[in-house]
Amino acid sequence: MPPAMPTPATPTRLSDLGQRARLPAVAALMAKAIETPGLLSVAAGMTDSATLPVREFVEAAQELAARPGDPDYLNYGTTQGRAGLRRILAERLRFWEPTLAATDLESRLLVTTGSQQALYVAVQSLCNLGDIVLVDRPSYFAFLDVATSLGARPVSLPYDASGRLHEDAVEELLGDIRRRGEIERVKAVYLVSYFSNPSGRSLSEADKAMLGRVLARHGVVVPLLEDVAYRELFFDEPFPSRSVLTLPEWEAFPRLYCATLTKPFSTGGKVGWAYCTDVTWFRQMLAIKGTHDFGSSNYTQALFEIILGRGGFDTHVPKVRRGYKAKMQALHEGLLEGGLRDLGWTWDVPTGGMYLWLRAPAHVDTGMDGAFCAECLKSGVLYVPGDLCFGDRPERNWIRASYGVLPPDQLREAGRRLAAVARRFAR
Amino acid sequence: MPPAMPTPATPTRLSDLGQRARLPAVAALMAKAIETPGLLSVAAGMTDSATLPVREFVEAAQELAARPGDPDYLNYGTTQGRAGLRRILAERLRFWEPTLAATDLESRLLVTTGSQQALYVAVQSLCNLGDIVLVDRPSYFAFLDVATSLGARPVSLPYDASGRLHEDAVEELLGDIRRRGEIERVKAVYLVSYFSNPSGRSLSEADKAMLGRVLARHGVVVPLLEDVAYRELFFDEPFPSRSVLTLPEWEAFPRLYCATLTKPFSTGGKVGWAYCTDVTWFRQMLAIKGTHDFGSSNYTQALFEIILGRGGFDTHVPKVRRGYKAKMQALHEGLLEGGLRDLGWTWDVPTGGMYLWLRAPAHVDTGMDGAFCAECLKSGVLYVPGDLCFGDRPERNWIRASYGVLPPDQLREAGRRLAAVARRFAR
Repeated sequence: MPPAMPTPATPTRLSDLGQRARLPAVAALMAKAIETPGLLSVAAGMTDSATLPVREFVEAAQELAARPGDPDYLNYGTTQGRAGLRRILAERLRFWEPTLAATDLESRLLVTTGSQQALYVAVQSLCNLGDIVLVDRPSYFAFLDVATSLGARPVSLPYDASGRLHEDAVEELLGDIRRRGEIERVKAVYLVSYFSNPSGRSLSEADKAMLGRVLARHGVVVPLLEDVAYRELFFDEPFPSRSVLTLPEWEAFPRLYCATLTKPFSTGGKVGWAYCTDVTWFRQMLAIKGTHDFGSSNYTQALFEIILGRGGFDTHVPKVRRGYKAKMQALHEGLLEGGLRDLGWTWDVPTGGMYLWLRAPAHVDTGMDGAFCAECLKSGVLYVPGDLCFGDRPERNWIRASYGVLPPDQLREAGRRLAAVARRFAR
Repeated sequence: MPPAMPTPATPTRLSDLGQRARLPAVAALMAKAIETPGLLSVAAGMTDSATLPVREFVEAAQELAARPGDPDYLNYGTTQGRAGLRRILAERLRFWEPTLAATDLESRLLVTTGSQQALYVAVQSLCNLGDIVLVDRPSYFAFLDVATSLGARPVSLPYDASGRLHEDAVEELLGDIRRRGEIERVKAVYLVSYFSNPSGRSLSEADKAMLGRVLARHGVVVPLLEDVAYRELFFDEPFPSRSVLTLPEWEAFPRLYCATLTKPFSTGGKVGWAYCTDVTWFRQMLAIKGTHDFGSSNYTQALFEIILGRGGFDTHVPKVRRGYKAKMQALHEGLLEGGLRDLGWTWDVPTGGMYLWLRAPAHVDTGMDGAFCAECLKSGVLYVPGDLCFGDRPERNWIRASYGVLPPDQLREAGRRLAAVARRFAR
């Protein structure tokens, strides 16, 4: 055989899913942030450096190293996650939902690489190309990316301006979907029901129950993903609503309770978890996660097992809550001091979470490629454009401002800078 | 409105991908292992407890905690992985492939949750339902699960009994695929080219080069996934073959070099990495990984950055190599002492890796539900049935035996037990 010449490089042919995936729009924002010295970013949903639990991690590492016997934590764990950690998480779940009737919760509890992974696996297990996922309005943009990357279509639930759901509006939405012949395409519902990303709002128990009733009435008894990433990040009091896990109106629905140890403690640990009410669905998600990675880092799971078991988590989180409350206040006041309210901007003062959700007058386009965003960057402040947070019919006059990362004085200054730009765009 | 009764629970409707996922067959084996006291398992590909780097991990944790300034490692990292870790990994890649011409390697290097995740993301980015992936014969069963769970079809390359590839056989295979009208469906090639799982074999540089030539001649210039998980786990000498990254015959192919820090060091850390030669493909894999999890645990990445940077990895791996060499020898000798060779079983003595790949006489069915496997369990020894390791046309008279976990005396005993059962099945 003569030696053959390799053919010239051809473009890699990607799969349908491979072509659909997009680097998140916020990635471009983050790149801008890095290029701009002196920029105050209220864009990233990262957590506060000042309160990160350095001591808790190293003490847990030392405790692990001092253990006699097999250092199993440095070997593979299971796809489902460490049994000891799952037992502790099941106890925590019972603390939050004391009427939860299920026994042996830990057998249907999955430990994930952040709650992002649980959301991905859930959508992958449920949605084919073109299927519909009902979402909050606004909704968490990273979830919207998950859904669209898997070919699903997010459709917004009809929240009103104050963040409430009304029965007639939900009826109308489902009626519309049915008339379009698409009611069978609705495959899941996704709610960030406590101190939501991006709105900071929580869904009242009455509204949550009503949503279950109306969906059931329409026969849309589809899996419900309840994302509770911020549930523990209340400022003064937990939000007074039960989860869908214990609301009778949701009893017939397969439900996935998606929680995390990262937002309230350390995002670098990257340990999330999810509890599922449905055995068949759970088993399939476990199988999918197994093909993804065979299980998340056993070592960080072992560290969290110790940190939670010793009470280090529960003593730390109140500090984080106090910190975020003060930082929310600083950003809020900076915006007020800059006169943003007088310029026709509106926002709620949240009672938990990590975000202010600011509504600009309708003529202000806060989009990433618009003049307002460019002026903000020039003035040294970066935010997440709100149009990224809509599952459909995006509105272009919103801003998500996170008080997670910056210290109070810088948040105050960021608020002032934002207001100063808004003044230049006022009519 | 009257309160509506929830409709009775309906079975969760799963997506096509959701239905396709299967819990790995080996999971059933592991369950059997747990139920059987005194069982010696040579099934799991886990690593040796005696040599796990307990000290290296805790010292790295202490060094991180002692660092002044922002404990960034406890906050989100990037999807691509820590820049410092990627720089170190890029240096290591240059060490293994000194003629690698690319500069700025770390910009196309992705840190993953074990190399499993890199393999999954790669197949997801490339294969639609029914597409073909060419694989080793035998091949890594977890990869076969990845491929089939994503709807791809593994097709075996024509290795001969001694683990060699011949040009005429590859020609014939590609000719067959072309005649079936499926040559355009070949979307990727997957090779475990150093001390393979399960065969322990390595692909010679001549065979590897020939494969590239023949594929190119047929216009099948598709992405190549080279899994090098065991490359560093040689016993005495590295296997003398360059990677596809620097073989001229592969220059026109998009290539993904999938490596890991877990098999040779600590599987509990669960940090893998992959280097890609193709910018477009790399960017799409990065986007997919972003939707999966936004990045692997930043904390364990930071630990590995320190461990590698201080030389802790390179001083530890030689111990692991010596350990595995001795343990391979113990299992091999146990099998010989039990008289397995005399019963018509054959196997190569590997020069690296973690597995013996045992061929039974043709009449012995080693499958999970067969009498042989049941007898082995009764006799207190568990293995991975070889039929799981074939992409197509499974052969049922092979066993994968791992010497990763058990200490030498137990490996020797496991070998004797296996041989004793084989004697009862001899003709």
